[in-house]
Amino acid sequence: MTLLEFLASPRSVRHFTGRPVSREQIDQILDVARWTGSARNRQPWRFRAVTDKAVQQRLSHLGQYAGHLANAPVTLVLLSADDGHLDTAFDLGRVAQTISLAAHAAGLGSCLATLYPDDNVAEASRILGLEPGWRAQHAMSLGYPATSHRLSPSAIPAGRLPLTTLVTHQSPPRP
Amino acid sequence: MTLLEFLASPRSVRHFTGRPVSREQIDQILDVARWTGSARNRQPWRFRAVTDKAVQQRLSHLGQYAGHLANAPVTLVLLSADDGHLDTAFDLGRVAQTISLAAHAAGLGSCLATLYPDDNVAEASRILGLEPGWRAQHAMSLGYPATSHRLSPSAIPAGRLPLTTLVTHQSPPRP
Repeated sequence: MTLLEFLASPRSVRHFTGRPVSREQIDQILDVARWTGSARNRQPWRFRAVTDKAVQQRLSHLGQYAGHLANAPVTLVLLSADDGHLDTAFDLGRVAQTISLAAHAAGLGSCLATLYPDDNVAEASRILGLEPGWRAQHAMSLGYPATSHRLSPSAIPAGRLPLTTLVTHQSPPRP
Repeated sequence: MTLLEFLASPRSVRHFTGRPVSREQIDQILDVARWTGSARNRQPWRFRAVTDKAVQQRLSHLGQYAGHLANAPVTLVLLSADDGHLDTAFDLGRVAQTISLAAHAAGLGSCLATLYPDDNVAEASRILGLEPGWRAQHAMSLGYPATSHRLSPSAIPAGRLPLTTLVTHQSPPRP
């Protein structure tokens, strides 16, 4: 598999084997993710790796599609700086993508969930005992995939738009 | 270099050689990026690859740190759906990170810029002739790095917070 094929290959994984994921594995993944770029190098992120089933269960009720958080070996909560900066959500997406790819490189599957609406984000803060200034708006399931998620047409749960729809080239006008 | 080392290795590149980047290279990178996950698979992104120097020059004035867009072989504008969805900025960050990594895998350097404030985003829409419903809030320089950006202490322009600051593990309480 080439690097480009690797980068295109992660798919959301919502079902996991019982095989545990160690703290060392989580730290290894986050030690990669922390090098992700951010606007003005603010690094407006922190991470809470939750393996307490009771906490995972409560978090799984805080978003419409967050149910998978309950049964994952690890629920990794992505904390974002509550600073009003326009770039914060964008930068959180950047680091989330690095985490997905690093997990994939380590043989783990992942799936993102958004916690919302705001009442649920506030509830997540209480559950996690967050310090002021941080919000828990995104969380990720992490674990060993229960089934094969190799890149094959049948394993692709949802299609993607073709390049012709996505890309326009804007070259210099011809003289 | 392992996959994890690769994922941690991109650095912002703002200076480029004159070597051109072909449409085929851009399309190859975006053909990887289009597999990036997004909330409800909305894929709230489109891409405009600009090599028209006059257009690149105008875009480079639309953000405080956007100057590098003027001199890049390609300015890749990331268009985001102007739909009010909370997840759109986050998803744009995800795809931007895939693009940075795919460019890096292809030997190219990149640097992101934010276009702001809103007046400048509106001006970018006019310059690019965007259809209604799309915003140009982020753009990226792409090209062959002018200098070596190998991973070495001296090549790291800015540090990152240590894992101990970034990560908390929340395990089950001991009985």
